[in-house]
Amino acid sequence: MTGRTEPSYRTARRAGPAPVAVDTMGGDHGPDEIITGAVAAVREHGVRLVLVGQAPRIRARLDRLGMAGKIPIVHADEALSMDEGALASWRKPRSSVAIACHLVKQGRASALVSAGTTAGVVATARLRLKGQQGVMRPAIAVTLPTRPRPTVLLDAGATADVKPETLVQFAAFGTAYAQVRLGLARPRVGLLNIGAEPGKGDKVTKRAYELLAGGQPGIEFAGNVEGDGLLSGAVDVVVTDGFTGNVALKTLEGAMRMASAEVRAALTATRTARVGALLQRRRLLGLRERFDSETYGGGVLLGLNGTVVIAHGASHARAIASACALAHDLAAGRIVEKVREQVAAIRTSRFGRWTHGDRDDKDKAAEPPAEPSAPDAGGDEPTAKAPGEEGPTAAGEGGRHELVAEGQEPPARP
Amino acid sequence: MTGRTEPSYRTARRAGPAPVAVDTMGGDHGPDEIITGAVAAVREHGVRLVLVGQAPRIRARLDRLGMAGKIPIVHADEALSMDEGALASWRKPRSSVAIACHLVKQGRASALVSAGTTAGVVATARLRLKGQQGVMRPAIAVTLPTRPRPTVLLDAGATADVKPETLVQFAAFGTAYAQVRLGLARPRVGLLNIGAEPGKGDKVTKRAYELLAGGQPGIEFAGNVEGDGLLSGAVDVVVTDGFTGNVALKTLEGAMRMASAEVRAALTATRTARVGALLQRRRLLGLRERFDSETYGGGVLLGLNGTVVIAHGASHARAIASACALAHDLAAGRIVEKVREQVAAIRTSRFGRWTHGDRDDKDKAAEPPAEPSAPDAGGDEPTAKAPGEEGPTAAGEGGRHELVAEGQEPPARP
Repeated sequence: MTGRTEPSYRTARRAGPAPVAVDTMGGDHGPDEIITGAVAAVREHGVRLVLVGQAPRIRARLDRLGMAGKIPIVHADEALSMDEGALASWRKPRSSVAIACHLVKQGRASALVSAGTTAGVVATARLRLKGQQGVMRPAIAVTLPTRPRPTVLLDAGATADVKPETLVQFAAFGTAYAQVRLGLARPRVGLLNIGAEPGKGDKVTKRAYELLAGGQPGIEFAGNVEGDGLLSGAVDVVVTDGFTGNVALKTLEGAMRMASAEVRAALTATRTARVGALLQRRRLLGLRERFDSETYGGGVLLGLNGTVVIAHGASHARAIASACALAHDLAAGRIVEKVREQVAAIRTSRFGRWTHGDRDDKDKAAEPPAEPSAPDAGGDEPTAKAPGEEGPTAAGEGGRHELVAEGQEPPARP
Repeated sequence: MTGRTEPSYRTARRAGPAPVAVDTMGGDHGPDEIITGAVAAVREHGVRLVLVGQAPRIRARLDRLGMAGKIPIVHADEALSMDEGALASWRKPRSSVAIACHLVKQGRASALVSAGTTAGVVATARLRLKGQQGVMRPAIAVTLPTRPRPTVLLDAGATADVKPETLVQFAAFGTAYAQVRLGLARPRVGLLNIGAEPGKGDKVTKRAYELLAGGQPGIEFAGNVEGDGLLSGAVDVVVTDGFTGNVALKTLEGAMRMASAEVRAALTATRTARVGALLQRRRLLGLRERFDSETYGGGVLLGLNGTVVIAHGASHARAIASACALAHDLAAGRIVEKVREQVAAIRTSRFGRWTHGDRDDKDKAAEPPAEPSAPDAGGDEPTAKAPGEEGPTAAGEGGRHELVAEGQEPPARP
């Protein structure tokens, strides 16, 4: 049954651009909530979808929502449970996420939306879609609801251990993403750091600063930003590793929750304050909700051969609908191609081994003659350690250190 | 003139325990604000102080506050300016911070308070006070105003690059600090991470988890906590590296500012909301102020041979007074000794090179015979790379990677 395509889907496929594949099995609220959100995306945003999951259940739900037979379904028997991590991508090759990835890989879907666990979705997507040519590691981009315009933060948790060159690539991802999603011609990119001046930070961040400040084609580098700069709107894109980015994002979430609790405490403490307080409280809760839906609701995994939108596990129907619309917009904006072009443009030579722009210059002579000739100029070294070929290494679980690639430690294959 | 002691100070010294040295030259608001705060500490908290800085100016200010001749003064010609970083500790050996450190080292002061730049104060203190025996790197502890009781976060920015063993030592620092400051017998220690389960995180954090979960004498390890756990009060102490800790803390600050701005916007948007809103706004601003004064207002540098309280540069008199009281309480609680005992107790053997508790067992045989014999059992390896002996490496500027000590890369001395 796995991967069997409904007749309606075959028909729909011929009618126009590929639809967005929705994994109906992830999320804390069960398939019904996700299907409700998917239907809203079709009705309100006009997005074309294909639903992946247990076909009878999806059919029953569509029936109740008056959409029977109107959205194509691809059956998948298995689901990644919410407590499964990266290894699940190996254990469950027929999970709904894996099958959705398969549809994207085959070109039968343009993008994929899942509300599964970040670790599970990232690992499965890396394994099934593989890393884009020249990309060292994938990153999750989230959009923070800052004013006057939003700020893109990446990596929010896909790659915990990075090299300086990885951060430069993330700057390229972020530039492409802000161009497509926010419509900015030259988004300003900041490096998350512990001081504004050059020379601040840990070893990796310092070197990344040098590489970025040295000038990278297509990247408008605006220097270091500190933690409070995440929300100030001073830059359009903030780049950091997946460990720091994840901690910062969850700290924000915790702070919003704390602020809401304080307002609630004030509300119950003073009776006279109630009427006015209500309005403010609504605004603050709105702020918190904006964080929840716009950040977690739409984390986008970049750097793979396909667009993957990771909705927060706690997403309700509305957040799922937004995630579907986002996936559609990103696919229509050709985000995968934009990322590829942006990454190919950057120069981050390191000991002459890691080459893009300067490959044809000094580094050619240093290459061992026995090396198989690369079919194109994308740089074979990064391809050789493309994420998808390394097994499940996402979001902490089973993740290995970047330095492994330099032979400092033998990798422990799962 | 430098270091010259006023007669009143000599007299005061004999009268009882050593006073707290206050650097009057740091901070954004100038010496007068700091001296005002110091006077408040004397009057309201009964703390004994010695003021370090330009004696004529201090005298004039004390005169105006009606305290002429009542607080001892030690003259210092120079000051670290607010834009100076770690190198200033070398360039200005007679800065007010350096002289305050000198007083602590000589036992003429019990602790030190400065509102200078974090980088400058940390570097000067490391250079002048040196690291405690057995301590790899210092850390800054801040106390977050969570409910029902506060949470200690460390490191908030002293050491950007850490080893797993450094994080275990920070757990020991944090335990001692929570015991002295919060009066907890067995504070619960969490490791800041990107997932709650074991096996999450970057390479360093994963290994630190193993070391902590393996059991460390005196440390009550409660597992991983995520970014939102910083504010949930689930643990008493949260341990992380200085890069992540600094980013998390500043992100919190930014989030509080954003929440305040939202409330302010609600206030101006609806006229009917004003009366009630005012109360809430006050509460939220209070929350923000609590963050500013209790966290930045009292960051404590741990791991050196002396207690250093780093007040936020923007501290007003009230925050300075709190910082003086905190410094006094920590010195009275023998925090330096408590940290030493806690660090000496932990076991973090790594490749047989890094030893405390198990020094007398298997590792003895592995030691090279030519090694100079350590006078006591505190572990000579950590002492050999004590922070103070490495020059200015604090808070990013001039800081070198921990891995240098393992010979992976030649250190670039400043």
